[in-house]
Amino acid sequence: MTTQPSQISVLALDVDGVLTDGRIAFDPVTNKELKFFHVHDGLGITLWQRVGFHVILLSGRSAKCVALRAEELQIPHIIQHSTDKIADLDRVLSEIGCTLEQTCFVGDDLGDIPVMQHVGYAIAVHNAVQEVKTIADWMTTRSGGDGAVREVIEHLMVANNTWDQALESIQTEHANQ
Amino acid sequence: MTTQPSQISVLALDVDGVLTDGRIAFDPVTNKELKFFHVHDGLGITLWQRVGFHVILLSGRSAKCVALRAEELQIPHIIQHSTDKIADLDRVLSEIGCTLEQTCFVGDDLGDIPVMQHVGYAIAVHNAVQEVKTIADWMTTRSGGDGAVREVIEHLMVANNTWDQALESIQTEHANQ
Amino acid sequence: MTTQPSQISVLALDVDGVLTDGRIAFDPVTNKELKFFHVHDGLGITLWQRVGFHVILLSGRSAKCVALRAEELQIPHIIQHSTDKIADLDRVLSEIGCTLEQTCFVGDDLGDIPVMQHVGYAIAVHNAVQEVKTIADWMTTRSGGDGAVREVIEHLMVANNTWDQALESIQTEHANQ
Amino acid sequence: MTTQPSQISVLALDVDGVLTDGRIAFDPVTNKELKFFHVHDGLGITLWQRVGFHVILLSGRSAKCVALRAEELQIPHIIQHSTDKIADLDRVLSEIGCTLEQTCFVGDDLGDIPVMQHVGYAIAVHNAVQEVKTIADWMTTRSGGDGAVREVIEHLMVANNTWDQALESIQTEHANQ
Repeated sequence: MTTQPSQISVLALDVDGVLTDGRIAFDPVTNKELKFFHVHDGLGITLWQRVGFHVILLSGRSAKCVALRAEELQIPHIIQHSTDKIADLDRVLSEIGCTLEQTCFVGDDLGDIPVMQHVGYAIAVHNAVQEVKTIADWMTTRSGGDGAVREVIEHLMVANNTWDQALESIQTEHANQ
Repeated sequence: MTTQPSQISVLALDVDGVLTDGRIAFDPVTNKELKFFHVHDGLGITLWQRVGFHVILLSGRSAKCVALRAEELQIPHIIQHSTDKIADLDRVLSEIGCTLEQTCFVGDDLGDIPVMQHVGYAIAVHNAVQEVKTIADWMTTRSGGDGAVREVIEHLMVANNTWDQALESIQTEHANQ
Repeated sequence: MTTQPSQISVLALDVDGVLTDGRIAFDPVTNKELKFFHVHDGLGITLWQRVGFHVILLSGRSAKCVALRAEELQIPHIIQHSTDKIADLDRVLSEIGCTLEQTCFVGDDLGDIPVMQHVGYAIAVHNAVQEVKTIADWMTTRSGGDGAVREVIEHLMVANNTWDQALESIQTEHANQ
Repeated sequence: MTTQPSQISVLALDVDGVLTDGRIAFDPVTNKELKFFHVHDGLGITLWQRVGFHVILLSGRSAKCVALRAEELQIPHIIQHSTDKIADLDRVLSEIGCTLEQTCFVGDDLGDIPVMQHVGYAIAVHNAVQEVKTIADWMTTRSGGDGAVREVIEHLMVANNTWDQALESIQTEHANQ
């Protein structure tokens, strides 16, 4: 099934390679993972949520820094160590009362293919493997960790005519202050 | 309003994406932010201040490493967690007795647009989003975190004929020692 | 000696510059090394091992983060601080009952040349030095730390007709859950 | 003065932007600097010193990680927080009984120009600022932190006919073990 991008109100995101560039380091003291997020993605997610849309993080790995980034961006739905992204996504969608047709998933690697084929609209980041690009409805020009999620959000908000409203909300913040 | 670059004596800088490449990591022990500055920007800021010009850091985020970098470069004016960059900038300008016409702001993202339209001269870094580039008076060829601020400073100091003096001050340091 | 890639069942990997981009930082608290692995390499290694093939890490350096990454990916054979990669490789091959003809080594720098000339199939990553590229049987288009090992694994599994099986195993995981 | 590269036996290196890519982070716990070195530079320095040549690190900054890297590579001459690179270099040269004519300095920024004009042979890395490139005797194609120092060492050792000997020493290590 493929939905038009203008119908999307739920943005489900893989983490490594999508919100990051796919590189993983380990802190030598705690063994915890270190990864780099991009500030432009953060503003995009803020604008997307401000309009009332949803964000879901779905990762096969688990790292404290992902929880910290989600908390900072006030993303309430974050599933780490997911062994079945389809089941986990279905459960969150049921909780928030949204459908697969309203959902876009952004992925980069083989493990994302089943969930990309499950949702209404599937996006591959520029740095995705070929198999993922082949089945995607749309591809970003920016890579994961370098603003790919921001590009996705602008693409979806332009399609549903909320992008101009988002831009204006930033101007209004200053006008009101 | 647009001033000539030769009239600028105050350089106000966004931080993430301008003094850094926009990537953000979190230290797993302290949850504090990790970001990368560039050594060439540091020398540029030193030369700019040596001539008597001002630097102001204006960030919507807040991180200890930004304070450390500012301290190292002896930047006295640093506003973090700014929710109104215009008001914060106006306040600092009033403190140092400078005008908006004398001020250049360097930005990369949507939140920088109001303040860029507020000052005399607005610069977008190479990695800025399109909306920011559209309203900028000038654009760098280097990206944030890769020497963009150094390029800005050289651009301004060439315009007001202080760059050669700055270069000579480096030679003189050695001649005097 | 050169084996056909379809005959390879043992993948021996240098670490710095092959599983990473060759950059090394030191943690200021513990002095331990910090380096970045890529998530795409991780899935490749998982698929390669799932089919029953072997992975051996052979590094001239020694770092705790390499042991952590190996543990996460369930790589049982990891030799760090190797002063004789040939002898260390021969010993592990003897333990697992495999031959040099069945072994592929992936390298990037001069120290890898003797072991590359010792095994059946030698691969140079894109970022390898010229001397290593000259003696390699095959070269990756991706650089170390940016998916080069994933590319190697796909190259070998396509050659021996196990890649499609690997792709299907990912789909089946989801069908069974 | 310009010496032929074949006459060089002392390699004096700036650190930030030459042995690293110029990026600086601060550890949030200790405030200590974090920077990335490249493993290919490390092997180059080892080969250069094995032939009996000298390495001197000369940095205007000071960081514990530079001392750790120098210790690992057994570089005995390391001057950090140098406020006069010329005086510091002259002192070390006097200690080791070498001349300026025998010395190559590798730099990237304005502060390196006086010492580059002081030594027999001056090299600019690919990422150097224009003023440094203008006065250099030679330029690398690789950037600092991405193998520029390795390229310098190969350039010098090819010029004085010790590179083949260095390559053979690596093969011999394995033949003897």
